[in-house]
Amino acid sequence: MPFDISPLELRHRIRAGEYSGNTSGYCPGFVQGNVVILPRDWASEFLQFCQFNTKSCPLVGMADVGDPRLPSLAHDLDIRTDLPSYRIFRDGEMVGEVPDIADLWRDDLVTFVLGCSFSFEEALLADGLDVRNVTEAVNVPMYRTHIECQPAGRFSGKMVVSMRPFLAADAIRAVQICTRFPSVHGAPIHLGDPSLIGISDINKTDYGDPVTIKPNELPVFWACGVTPQVALEQARPPLCITHSPGCMLVTDVKNSQLAIL
Amino acid sequence: MPFDISPLELRHRIRAGEYSGNTSGYCPGFVQGNVVILPRDWASEFLQFCQFNTKSCPLVGMADVGDPRLPSLAHDLDIRTDLPSYRIFRDGEMVGEVPDIADLWRDDLVTFVLGCSFSFEEALLADGLDVRNVTEAVNVPMYRTHIECQPAGRFSGKMVVSMRPFLAADAIRAVQICTRFPSVHGAPIHLGDPSLIGISDINKTDYGDPVTIKPNELPVFWACGVTPQVALEQARPPLCITHSPGCMLVTDVKNSQLAIL
Repeated sequence: MPFDISPLELRHRIRAGEYSGNTSGYCPGFVQGNVVILPRDWASEFLQFCQFNTKSCPLVGMADVGDPRLPSLAHDLDIRTDLPSYRIFRDGEMVGEVPDIADLWRDDLVTFVLGCSFSFEEALLADGLDVRNVTEAVNVPMYRTHIECQPAGRFSGKMVVSMRPFLAADAIRAVQICTRFPSVHGAPIHLGDPSLIGISDINKTDYGDPVTIKPNELPVFWACGVTPQVALEQARPPLCITHSPGCMLVTDVKNSQLAIL
Repeated sequence: MPFDISPLELRHRIRAGEYSGNTSGYCPGFVQGNVVILPRDWASEFLQFCQFNTKSCPLVGMADVGDPRLPSLAHDLDIRTDLPSYRIFRDGEMVGEVPDIADLWRDDLVTFVLGCSFSFEEALLADGLDVRNVTEAVNVPMYRTHIECQPAGRFSGKMVVSMRPFLAADAIRAVQICTRFPSVHGAPIHLGDPSLIGISDINKTDYGDPVTIKPNELPVFWACGVTPQVALEQARPPLCITHSPGCMLVTDVKNSQLAIL
């Protein structure tokens, strides 16, 4: 399957069971999103959690209760079938990974789509910056911090961050570029000494893979979409469905459309 | 004299010989500029030097040859009398400091006005950031770096930087704020390890005064308007006139008008 397939065509192939892998690299230029599906009686608290913690949980779309469509993000989308793989959590524990959720769908489920770092990484790469996890072809390194999210109802937890190392001048440029994209985590939240945000060993990741930090480079930290996953695990809703890692919702929205400038 | 006097009134008082001190703090909200006056046969090379090195030498105005007015910057301005104090350089050496240059004026002199950090410091303060040289009421610390300016004709030299320490999150915010003001030095050029830009001891300034760097703070470095002064001293034009340090040209332009966003 060619990488530059259209988002609609990719979703149709996934829906038909012809593709169930990672969406990374497909449909360059288009927004890929993290997906969280919750019962209605948990949805409003999760929405509030997102609004209180916009850098970690930047909402790019939300469906009506029971509606598997998201017309603001994609034409002819069915959230029950159009992701390559889903994870099912019951009471905060993962109980399975499935290729579709048609059997699990209920008319009280609410779908949230959160922005993801693929969008701003594309902008950094387009500007000529060396995005180390891309160069080294690994998952971005992620760390739990000691930064508390602002709680909302049953949702709380500490911020998880992703890290990309840069020379200082490139770190400054990365702040400028990412500031244009508040709906995909926006500007970094920290740079420099990792211990100041509760990371004791930069070579030990909590998620993803370590990357090389070259001499004279600073680690630069962004709020990360794993943050709401941690909050969901702690809140233990009776049912929660998410995308499987790397198997994102591919939308019809262009990354450039998310730029505020 | 009240600090919130109008720029025109301040210039008139200076012109009348009623004030010859520092302009810092006067006319809040209005652009103050560095002034460089050169003979015509040096002016085009200096203009090119400014265009090659915009972060150090951000031009906000330039007069016609022999014209002591700058209508784009100020109404009823006479550059020969409206600065509180002038420095006269002959062959790169300072030979005097005078309250006006009416006697020295020639019809081949060209006036340049360069943006100054007062404008972006005002924006940082308005955002609630702690600008240490303001808090400690001293001149901003400045350092010679090993960064070479791009030469233009007889003008060359190394970049001089100013430094303000910030916690990382405030440094990121400072990048965002200063990016809006490219004509007053713009975004920082470096942050973190001073030795990477050729500064061996952060507590030893080359110009200005040292400031406290608190634990967990990063030094953040901006290209500085002393850079063109160093280039002028090295180029040794037969005549060059500048403002005396701190005795700036106060214009009718609002700092907010310099913001590109």
